[in-house]
Amino acid sequence: MEAIKQPVRGTQDFLPTETRIREYVRKKILDSYAEYGFLQIKTPILENIELLNGSDGGDNLRLMFKILKRGEKLDLTSIKSEDDLVDMGLRYDLTVPLARFYSNNCEKLPMPFKSIQIDDAFRAERPQRGRLRQFVQCDIDILGDASNNAEIECLMVSANAMMNIGFTNFEYKVSDRRILTDLILKAGFPVENISSVCITLDKLDKIGIDGIKNELIQKNFVGNVDILISSIQKVQENGIDALRELDVNKEAVSNVSKIVNAVNLLSKGKNFSASFDISIIRGQGYYTSSVFEIYANGFSGACGGGGRYDTMIEKISGKKSPAVGFSLGFERLCLILNEQNFVPPQKEMIALIFDNGAEFTSVFAYAQELSKNYVVNSAPKAKNFNNQLLKLKENGFTKWVYFEEKIVKEIK
Amino acid sequence: MEAIKQPVRGTQDFLPTETRIREYVRKKILDSYAEYGFLQIKTPILENIELLNGSDGGDNLRLMFKILKRGEKLDLTSIKSEDDLVDMGLRYDLTVPLARFYSNNCEKLPMPFKSIQIDDAFRAERPQRGRLRQFVQCDIDILGDASNNAEIECLMVSANAMMNIGFTNFEYKVSDRRILTDLILKAGFPVENISSVCITLDKLDKIGIDGIKNELIQKNFVGNVDILISSIQKVQENGIDALRELDVNKEAVSNVSKIVNAVNLLSKGKNFSASFDISIIRGQGYYTSSVFEIYANGFSGACGGGGRYDTMIEKISGKKSPAVGFSLGFERLCLILNEQNFVPPQKEMIALIFDNGAEFTSVFAYAQELSKNYVVNSAPKAKNFNNQLLKLKENGFTKWVYFEEKIVKEIK
Repeated sequence: MEAIKQPVRGTQDFLPTETRIREYVRKKILDSYAEYGFLQIKTPILENIELLNGSDGGDNLRLMFKILKRGEKLDLTSIKSEDDLVDMGLRYDLTVPLARFYSNNCEKLPMPFKSIQIDDAFRAERPQRGRLRQFVQCDIDILGDASNNAEIECLMVSANAMMNIGFTNFEYKVSDRRILTDLILKAGFPVENISSVCITLDKLDKIGIDGIKNELIQKNFVGNVDILISSIQKVQENGIDALRELDVNKEAVSNVSKIVNAVNLLSKGKNFSASFDISIIRGQGYYTSSVFEIYANGFSGACGGGGRYDTMIEKISGKKSPAVGFSLGFERLCLILNEQNFVPPQKEMIALIFDNGAEFTSVFAYAQELSKNYVVNSAPKAKNFNNQLLKLKENGFTKWVYFEEKIVKEIK
Repeated sequence: MEAIKQPVRGTQDFLPTETRIREYVRKKILDSYAEYGFLQIKTPILENIELLNGSDGGDNLRLMFKILKRGEKLDLTSIKSEDDLVDMGLRYDLTVPLARFYSNNCEKLPMPFKSIQIDDAFRAERPQRGRLRQFVQCDIDILGDASNNAEIECLMVSANAMMNIGFTNFEYKVSDRRILTDLILKAGFPVENISSVCITLDKLDKIGIDGIKNELIQKNFVGNVDILISSIQKVQENGIDALRELDVNKEAVSNVSKIVNAVNLLSKGKNFSASFDISIIRGQGYYTSSVFEIYANGFSGACGGGGRYDTMIEKISGKKSPAVGFSLGFERLCLILNEQNFVPPQKEMIALIFDNGAEFTSVFAYAQELSKNYVVNSAPKAKNFNNQLLKLKENGFTKWVYFEEKIVKEIK
């Protein structure tokens, strides 16, 4: 059998230059959130299968990696279903572990509890570009604050993280699920069709208003498609003013206004802003009111998003708590920086090349000296020296010095 | 059913203060190794089950978490053994992934390749204090250097990491597997008993020389127990000189001397040293010559260890390469710092307390101002204010300021 060289399907090895970017983004995000008193926690990658299955994971449950029972617990003679074979799963997000953590530890935590998690999650998705089966999620959550201060803070501190990473122009799009729900109901659609209507509306970016109209007609709902489309168009043209005219849920309108105005007030002089956008729907079913996404100038697709989910912590953990979360798209941000050939700021990297006969204690003592000013990698001179320098350069080294000569040179 | 609050058996939730220590240790270790040109890489937590099963994992294979096949690949009607059910496993160490990574990517890497990995590994061990089923391993490896420069560098840079974490007094114990092997053979034991003899000798710390003698007699080997014990005692008394007298494998003796002398030369003026110690055996079967452990003053048991494993990369990946590795005991180091109530140096942490009626944009603007000097957590004043301050204190906050007053106070 040929040796296995590739990582398992849908996962990735990260080379040193890629890992450097990942560590840079990770550190910037952690430090930025920590500045504002968010507290990092860690939970295991493994969770009880009952907890995961009992969560509101939707499609993610189908994509779960499950762990085979071990030892005596595994009885191969009487298997009726998958459930007999597994006792744990790999977490598919960081929200289920957060809910469990919170109910396990809340009496030790400050209230409201502002958490940071930046850790691996797993989904057995059909492999495709930019969609990994193991990926880093980067979540902040504020538990225990029912006011929209929580939304405002999540957006402001996430903007802080984006700026610290180096993103200079970005935009928040904010909505409230109750607004669209209200418009759908006002157009005569029944409650049970709301989510199906939303799935269509979520395609606004891709298929435009006419595409949406056609799809809604095809879906053949009870409900007036023309009224709904006309409402949405009014909202697209006149924003929050249109919502007031259309007499939409006042609490939701006030919520969105307050969040958008606060972010725009606090972001004065910085290159980001917030606006209401009816097309922000968010895939997951668990958001209860506010929803938001962040878009970086020059890149299509969101770089992160979140919202308020006031019922889910209780559903998972039995512990009631209002909650707002925001998740920066770690993998996406790293991909953007990789494609820009971004080099994280750090000490210059130098290779200390020595002859095979050199006394290593002297070589290392010289490396110690160089390490005051450089990242220094000592390496015996290879037979193919040009190739050695090339590989060093590809891995971030810009200078080299020959031990026997002690003259610093550029790697060309 | 009652909600699941606990993490799965043998794993742990880490509270903010614990996580802070973990992040501190992680960062110090990464930065210390990076200073000397070690390049961090990342590999997936999941690996092919064939790769893992084909590795030299010994007992670890029995302790592996295995992943159930998904979709059509899982056929519950014709199961003969576990192998029919699983296609992946969670890695039990970072060396198997390293070998695969190396054979997959070596043409893109500088030679010798000096890697850092600090990532999760998994073993389904019987849960006990200090032994977690998910744990962080922290490995450096030098691939492609057959000289003992690699050993010297691993020990020196790991000492650098220990010092940067804050450990001030520690000691390396160094041996070479070939020395003990030679003594065992010289005492007349057959080759096939070497590993069983070593298992007994590894208990020297716990049961002493008499205990070892008794156990060897009980094991009833062909071979002269008295000669072996007497050789070991000579070596314990006179160190490397005794090895020369006993005419032990000259290459091994020279190897150990060179490593020990180099480290002691380079560590002059610092509070660490290296010495030869015949009792360093190391559990894993894969080391081929040098083996070492690190002991921190005041703490029993090793804080890390490693050695040379020149055959394993080829066994796993088919790609031949000499290799030396060192692994700092991340979980152990964190445990020690936790028990010392160590607080990582950072900006002072302040809580910005505000009345529920306060205008949040003004509160956050003040938080932005405070964030120049403090880690700042803004929180609405709780009904039980004393308890709120207590929880803040337990999570690292030392000061608080009331927004309506703007006077900074200590949390008592």
